[in-house]
Amino acid sequence: MSKSSLKTAAGGGLLDRRSFLLSGLALSSAHAVASSQSSLGESLPQWMKTPGGNDLEYGLPASAERHVTRQLAKNTPETALFSMWHTPIENQRGIITPSGLHFSVNHNGVPNIVPEQHQLLLHGMVDKPLKFDIESLLRYPVVSHIRFIECAGNTAQNAVSLNPLNLGCQELFGQLSGAEWSGIPLKYLLNEAGVKPSAKWVIAEGADGGSHSRSIPLEKLMDDAILALYQNGERLRPSQGYPMRLLLPGWEGNTNVKWLHRLEVTDKPAYSKDESGLYSDILKNGKIQRFSFPMEVKSVITHPSGNQVLPERKGFYEISGLAWSGRGKIAKVEVSADGGKTWAQANLDSPVLAKSLTRFRIPWQWNGESTTLLSRATDEQGQIQPTRHQWRDKYASYSFNHYNAIQAWHISRDGTVENTYV
Amino acid sequence: MSKSSLKTAAGGGLLDRRSFLLSGLALSSAHAVASSQSSLGESLPQWMKTPGGNDLEYGLPASAERHVTRQLAKNTPETALFSMWHTPIENQRGIITPSGLHFSVNHNGVPNIVPEQHQLLLHGMVDKPLKFDIESLLRYPVVSHIRFIECAGNTAQNAVSLNPLNLGCQELFGQLSGAEWSGIPLKYLLNEAGVKPSAKWVIAEGADGGSHSRSIPLEKLMDDAILALYQNGERLRPSQGYPMRLLLPGWEGNTNVKWLHRLEVTDKPAYSKDESGLYSDILKNGKIQRFSFPMEVKSVITHPSGNQVLPERKGFYEISGLAWSGRGKIAKVEVSADGGKTWAQANLDSPVLAKSLTRFRIPWQWNGESTTLLSRATDEQGQIQPTRHQWRDKYASYSFNHYNAIQAWHISRDGTVENTYV
Repeated sequence: MSKSSLKTAAGGGLLDRRSFLLSGLALSSAHAVASSQSSLGESLPQWMKTPGGNDLEYGLPASAERHVTRQLAKNTPETALFSMWHTPIENQRGIITPSGLHFSVNHNGVPNIVPEQHQLLLHGMVDKPLKFDIESLLRYPVVSHIRFIECAGNTAQNAVSLNPLNLGCQELFGQLSGAEWSGIPLKYLLNEAGVKPSAKWVIAEGADGGSHSRSIPLEKLMDDAILALYQNGERLRPSQGYPMRLLLPGWEGNTNVKWLHRLEVTDKPAYSKDESGLYSDILKNGKIQRFSFPMEVKSVITHPSGNQVLPERKGFYEISGLAWSGRGKIAKVEVSADGGKTWAQANLDSPVLAKSLTRFRIPWQWNGESTTLLSRATDEQGQIQPTRHQWRDKYASYSFNHYNAIQAWHISRDGTVENTYV
Repeated sequence: MSKSSLKTAAGGGLLDRRSFLLSGLALSSAHAVASSQSSLGESLPQWMKTPGGNDLEYGLPASAERHVTRQLAKNTPETALFSMWHTPIENQRGIITPSGLHFSVNHNGVPNIVPEQHQLLLHGMVDKPLKFDIESLLRYPVVSHIRFIECAGNTAQNAVSLNPLNLGCQELFGQLSGAEWSGIPLKYLLNEAGVKPSAKWVIAEGADGGSHSRSIPLEKLMDDAILALYQNGERLRPSQGYPMRLLLPGWEGNTNVKWLHRLEVTDKPAYSKDESGLYSDILKNGKIQRFSFPMEVKSVITHPSGNQVLPERKGFYEISGLAWSGRGKIAKVEVSADGGKTWAQANLDSPVLAKSLTRFRIPWQWNGESTTLLSRATDEQGQIQPTRHQWRDKYASYSFNHYNAIQAWHISRDGTVENTYV
């Protein structure tokens, strides 16, 4: 099949997303070899001439990949008690973030908890206050779901900076990760304690030095919330809340209280420090919007993305990225390769799961000219990502949480990719 | 809701799998506290009185969980070039195995490959032999799927030992893991090289010191096989084949050739060392069965499982385990708590994916008497696990690959759990 017979799907060289299902495509990036070179012969590498080394009890990345790490958000010293560690999502494929690279926002450092001494107190407006230790919790039913967590402040730079900053995916979008979380449905614990009919809220408090706390509507805890004990098949890592955390699918990161040690059932919110301050949104008219829990529909192209360089001046590339919504499943992702003039629908990799990262992909034949790539996600509730202008029309110019506008990457003729606004 | 109103589903105390959807259940394993104790007061633990510590660039398990590791199969010295590292699946929840705990069978140690010097040669019966380096491969389309890998010899001890050995899940079932694998569909590379019409097989060779190789039917490579570059969102770990491996969904582990460096398209198999020897099956009539690729439907209860001890003499437990089939999705898992007299259907956690681990769960009210727990999986093709007798009727008494019989765990009155035969 010649390249000219490939079906285009939109301007700027976007190909039909089913192109690869129909036929092979000469990508021309491999090296043809003469038949006489087909045998590797004396060119065998050193590691084929000697026995290999020992394996590890607990595996680690290859030494050549050790540069792929979480990174502290710019301008936050490593010694700060409030620290934000970003996931290098431009290195991720699929929808699972390795636990060692899961993003982490710590309001007061990472406590070093002795699990045998940790207890969860469930009290307040209940018939029977209860205390749970790890051993008793491990006997409860455990459910598992693949979910995303996103910090309310993810991509805040593009919300507030008048000019687009020269940032890559990790710095701009790295407060986002996906994982399989396993734990106990909160409703089992609440039912066991017996919630009083007039109860409406639950104050969740962490066992960190700052006692980070949030008020959570009781309804969410009786719905799909879990007390997470496991992440990606093993017990939680310390910076993810070991030995236990709240997992509120689709809700802003800081409500998924880590190192959870207390749940107080009440009839009104606590208006705790973080929910009254940092995690409030300021609207255009100056009013404060509190308790904006769900993370709205959003997407980002991770390949190619900011600060990457396309290795060839033109030719075939696969555009690949992530989409997610705190309100359910992703229904559709559209991609534009001409700055928004035309759009084509991308493939969504299965499984497409509710409140999980979803991987989208579309083939692209770049003509070598400068252009702008965009992605626009729609969720199953029909919510669609706003433009940056639309988003900023709603919020005060200095409000930075819940930014979910369409992301634009500018491609230069020399192949460099940069954060831009359209 | 009182315990007596819970719907039983089968003998031995198995409850209806929907019990928890209907209502809460008093598990009685939590500790009731007086209202006056509801405030933690002066009992605040040390880590709530001081700021927390620094986070890590690449996260690691909590120090209290460092005992959860892969373990070398018994009787294989750590220095052996042929080594088998088992996953502690009795510690896993959900369907993802952490990459650091993924099982590993190495036929000649783990080679220390310099990725820039590694190339994949695709040659033989093709129009145009090709060599691929990592940089060119990273431009190809990348697909992601959650799959299991199981070694052909997993659970071999129960195939050949006349008496049940006193082994736990890790030793008996630990050559099994689940992960999200991302890579390039092999058909794209084969189509680019142009496979000759008379080709039928592809010899896949690894770049380890022993050049582990297997002959793979071309049909599988044109179906759902991928050249895996990523595992659980990051580049492969060294013991999983860094920088690239074959991933043949559902097929016995050793065919998923690690450190892949050569694919030779042919019209007949190579009858290489491992496919003619170790990975052949010997039938009852003495005949040899080669190329038995798919791993058949199988399951195991991981909670409770061998060498665990039930903490209470009787009471509520959730039975939880894993089921998988190399031929597609799991359709059904039945559990027996009375040694096979009666069976009840377990919950299957979503998503239920083809050629992936599937988590099953069922609530169980143990009466404290000794009994035997069994699980029996059926896949979407209608294949069902055989009994141990049925399995041994097919194979020679010393044949040990592809053992997939129903696993039995004996529960003693003191709560100990042991491997047994029924």
